[in-house]
Amino acid sequence: MNKITEFETVYLEEEKGALAIVDQTKLPNKIEMLYLTTAKEIWDAIYLLKVRGAPAIGVAAAIGIYVLVKDEPTDNMDVFAEKFQELKQYLSTSRPTAVNLFWALDRMENVVKENHAHTVLEVKELLHEEALKIREEDIKVCRKLGEYGLTLVKKGDGLLTHCNAGRLAAVKYGTATAPMYIGQEQGYGFHIYVDETRPLLQGARLTAFELDTAGLDVTLICDNMSGMVMKKGLIQAVFVGCDRVASNGDTANKIGTSVVAAVAKHYNVPFYVCAPTSTIDMSLASGCEIPIEERSGEEITEMWYEKRMAPKGVKVFNPCFDVTDHELITAIVTEYGIARPPYDVSLKKIFEMKKNNL
Amino acid sequence: MNKITEFETVYLEEEKGALAIVDQTKLPNKIEMLYLTTAKEIWDAIYLLKVRGAPAIGVAAAIGIYVLVKDEPTDNMDVFAEKFQELKQYLSTSRPTAVNLFWALDRMENVVKENHAHTVLEVKELLHEEALKIREEDIKVCRKLGEYGLTLVKKGDGLLTHCNAGRLAAVKYGTATAPMYIGQEQGYGFHIYVDETRPLLQGARLTAFELDTAGLDVTLICDNMSGMVMKKGLIQAVFVGCDRVASNGDTANKIGTSVVAAVAKHYNVPFYVCAPTSTIDMSLASGCEIPIEERSGEEITEMWYEKRMAPKGVKVFNPCFDVTDHELITAIVTEYGIARPPYDVSLKKIFEMKKNNL
Repeated sequence: MNKITEFETVYLEEEKGALAIVDQTKLPNKIEMLYLTTAKEIWDAIYLLKVRGAPAIGVAAAIGIYVLVKDEPTDNMDVFAEKFQELKQYLSTSRPTAVNLFWALDRMENVVKENHAHTVLEVKELLHEEALKIREEDIKVCRKLGEYGLTLVKKGDGLLTHCNAGRLAAVKYGTATAPMYIGQEQGYGFHIYVDETRPLLQGARLTAFELDTAGLDVTLICDNMSGMVMKKGLIQAVFVGCDRVASNGDTANKIGTSVVAAVAKHYNVPFYVCAPTSTIDMSLASGCEIPIEERSGEEITEMWYEKRMAPKGVKVFNPCFDVTDHELITAIVTEYGIARPPYDVSLKKIFEMKKNNL
Repeated sequence: MNKITEFETVYLEEEKGALAIVDQTKLPNKIEMLYLTTAKEIWDAIYLLKVRGAPAIGVAAAIGIYVLVKDEPTDNMDVFAEKFQELKQYLSTSRPTAVNLFWALDRMENVVKENHAHTVLEVKELLHEEALKIREEDIKVCRKLGEYGLTLVKKGDGLLTHCNAGRLAAVKYGTATAPMYIGQEQGYGFHIYVDETRPLLQGARLTAFELDTAGLDVTLICDNMSGMVMKKGLIQAVFVGCDRVASNGDTANKIGTSVVAAVAKHYNVPFYVCAPTSTIDMSLASGCEIPIEERSGEEITEMWYEKRMAPKGVKVFNPCFDVTDHELITAIVTEYGIARPPYDVSLKKIFEMKKNNL
């Protein structure tokens, strides 16, 4: 097995009673599946980016919390609900920015709350169903994103993406990569440019890897080369994923996304955010309210290098995400259609459609 | 000796009869001086970036060609001039983008041409003087750049720079760093943010190193974090160096410079290019005419990593420079003053001042 298409990124391993994930920190040099059964293991896997990408984090949290409560010995619903709460609180501290983590845990919690009159055994079964449903929905949602996204481009286009919003960041198709995969099914012949995405190189290690393995035409560049390729006319559209979108369209995504967006604006290249509605947080007025995770400076100065690449003791700023101003975003692609500015109006409409299940 | 301020980046080692350079590929982990005496060694040092930075390349080429011809045994000026030509041709193939290489070699060649009536011994002495003069001028020019640059900022400002246009890229002061060093002499208390500058990390390895060693307040960031720090209001001005400026102000500099410029424009942060007139090529109408060096993709996928960081066989695009459109440049700082748009007018004036030696 050496093709990323041959295995699943995140799923419930029923026999082992485990959350199964591919360890993304080992890619592309090694494909290694992890089977997680303890709260510490699952928390670490999210915090240490063994599983990463907003949709995949959501699915992992849903399956993960099911795995953690399924063998809870009590048959007292109050005790069970309290235990559930405790685990939910713990898991939700693993990463602050992606809203899917909270969204998925809230959905699981609602199952517990709404079925308090049922037996613990019944609730466990409902949690099992809900976790699998969240996972199945992710596949469908990404497929829809891909179909809508595909309407924004044409055959032979050059597309740029940043970080990994690919199948590794979700269950299948990915978000930003969904139009690429579905375009490939339909013979679109895209030329994909992938930002390596410092400091953790998710673009080089994950996106270039998964697209290359799937047979797409991929060219890897450094993050600072987006200006060059756009000026050369090689890019007709940018597709990125997101970790949280505010109601005005401001979008938190991997650090550097806002840079690509500003450059795209200068070169008149359309900039598209692929956002499952699970990543849109209508409770936030703007991106200022999105908490931005900061990580260790050693990710920049030492990680992966044979030698230290910066002077000892130098200060380092290492924000994991940035917020792209909504005015830099050409459109937001959701599973219910394409939202265009002004986003405070168009995103509301998207959620009305979702409510009405259109 | 572990302070970069304690040694000189590039000079003529008279006793050894050698071009002396600090091997910049070994920094910041090791400070190692190289003493070069053969054409192959000097060509390699430039090509392999052991000496790099437009002004330093110019000085190294001038001293280098003197070192190569000083022991030429002939006393026939025709034979000597032919040998000089041959070496000049050879050295000028080492790197295509920085114009200082050609500018310095042309200046040295003019000494040979203008003194054809003199003896070989006399011409060698004149070449010796010219090489040292080019080096001394670099120090004065950078000092002037710093003084003019300093008028554009105020105490306590946050300044961002990309790549290394520091003292390591020149003889002393550097170009983009000159306002920082001279500001430090005058107690400006700047907060300097340094882009690491992929793929070869000149920002992390060289700029952070030299500024940190000199006692400035430095924070290292990845190239893709410029949007974040500008949005946070941490940056009041960007200073970058350049490898070649066209007569309309279009500026070739380290890959990623145009990205910083586009981001700065979005956040209304002034973007300044520090350009000794030796890097301004008035023979070029625009940046389209500047040849852009492409380097091996392995610089991106493998160099410095313990393991390969991208899938085997993936295509890589690795341009070494990009061209920043003149409309993104707030001002160009030269040793004769500050040029503002429209540059086709202001740069002409700068060269008139230079001609009149004002």
